[in-house]
Amino acid sequence: MNIPRISLIGAGPGDIELITLKGIKAIESADVILYDALANEELLAYAKPDAVKVYVGKRLGKYVYTQEQINYQIVQLALEYGHVVRLKGGDPFVFGRGFEEIEYVRSFNIPCEVISGVTSAIAAPASVGIPVTTRGYAESFWVITGTTKTGELSNDIKLAAQSTATVVVLMGMSKLEQICAIFTDYQKQDTPVAIVQNGTRDNAKYLVGTIEDIVSKVKTKKLSNPAVIVIGEVVSLHPEFIETYLKEEIRTMRG
Amino acid sequence: MNIPRISLIGAGPGDIELITLKGIKAIESADVILYDALANEELLAYAKPDAVKVYVGKRLGKYVYTQEQINYQIVQLALEYGHVVRLKGGDPFVFGRGFEEIEYVRSFNIPCEVISGVTSAIAAPASVGIPVTTRGYAESFWVITGTTKTGELSNDIKLAAQSTATVVVLMGMSKLEQICAIFTDYQKQDTPVAIVQNGTRDNAKYLVGTIEDIVSKVKTKKLSNPAVIVIGEVVSLHPEFIETYLKEEIRTMRG
Repeated sequence: MNIPRISLIGAGPGDIELITLKGIKAIESADVILYDALANEELLAYAKPDAVKVYVGKRLGKYVYTQEQINYQIVQLALEYGHVVRLKGGDPFVFGRGFEEIEYVRSFNIPCEVISGVTSAIAAPASVGIPVTTRGYAESFWVITGTTKTGELSNDIKLAAQSTATVVVLMGMSKLEQICAIFTDYQKQDTPVAIVQNGTRDNAKYLVGTIEDIVSKVKTKKLSNPAVIVIGEVVSLHPEFIETYLKEEIRTMRG
Repeated sequence: MNIPRISLIGAGPGDIELITLKGIKAIESADVILYDALANEELLAYAKPDAVKVYVGKRLGKYVYTQEQINYQIVQLALEYGHVVRLKGGDPFVFGRGFEEIEYVRSFNIPCEVISGVTSAIAAPASVGIPVTTRGYAESFWVITGTTKTGELSNDIKLAAQSTATVVVLMGMSKLEQICAIFTDYQKQDTPVAIVQNGTRDNAKYLVGTIEDIVSKVKTKKLSNPAVIVIGEVVSLHPEFIETYLKEEIRTMRG
């Protein structure tokens, strides 16, 4: 009989080499792996050949499992097989409902370890050369979900628009127009914006623009979730932003 | 002759197994490693036996090297030895002056890759069981440095105090009283606070409290930098917070 236990692991932002050593070791020892859409499936290659692999993400745009069903499965599989690895994209405590899962597990007195991961909030911008903080550009960064419990955009976005923080919105592509409208309300229409889709993966796409033009650019380039929206002066450090906006400005100034 | 190149790597929050696989591979191939105080020295064991190891962090509270000297050294060592790994605690783009270093390097046309790391802003709270986000508790988290260019506390802290975000302050222990005063100005004296020193390391210490009592608790327990300050309702999920504050409240309510 295997002793039931859970490892809640952040798989990192997509690039399979951006998982932690601790994460790899947990996958190697797992009897069962539950993984979702944002975790890179290639990581399953670290698993024992006889490990049970369960996909619990979206398929064809539909939820295969509800959160309650996932919670229930984690516990049942741990009781049946022993060590269950719950593999989540990015970091398990960044909008992953990871805490809800471990709270449920612990209510059955099953031990649960949490292994932090590299979050796409930082790594996706970094992968295209944009730092979330840099002296003289941003003293802070604010990571907000575009998909709240109620489906509404978080009110925090209004405060964020007044700050000097780099604002990073995860899973917010369907709210992009609304987000830009809020920034425009605070006269931030010239603020630089970057969108990074599938950041750190081979199929990554990105674009840079401003609050004013990013929505039309996204439509032209057809970018969508999973994507990270980065709003703030740090985006102006990107060579493409300099080429598109700042050189134009310099040319205009020179007449 | 080795071809000069730089890898700017996030060493992760302290636990040596929380470095990424990509980070380990870069250290293994390095001809030179420049590391600072927040990167775990045990990671140097991955280096080739003849790799040059240079410590560029604080020693006895003094800066050994200025940022300019570090920049210069990175370039000189790359030109002399080839592959230089610049190993930084946490993530290289989170208040690490990492972007300044790669900008300098690139001005010499030396190629530079950035390898993201697990940030202590998320992993230190996670290591004591506190998630930076959880539905119903926080829809966002805001990471702020306590040590800005001017030495002043960032003005963003005032906006943060009005938000529902989890506020995470890095390297802010010397400003703790000032931070708590700002939250008190916004009637947030009951907001839960956690301090995690050396999070994810064997010598980690932490405590939980509120804006009202955390300063005196820190003095009693003598916590100091390197520490992560976490402010927000998510801290109330910690068992010790429940034990200390919420059970007391329930007892009071019951008379």
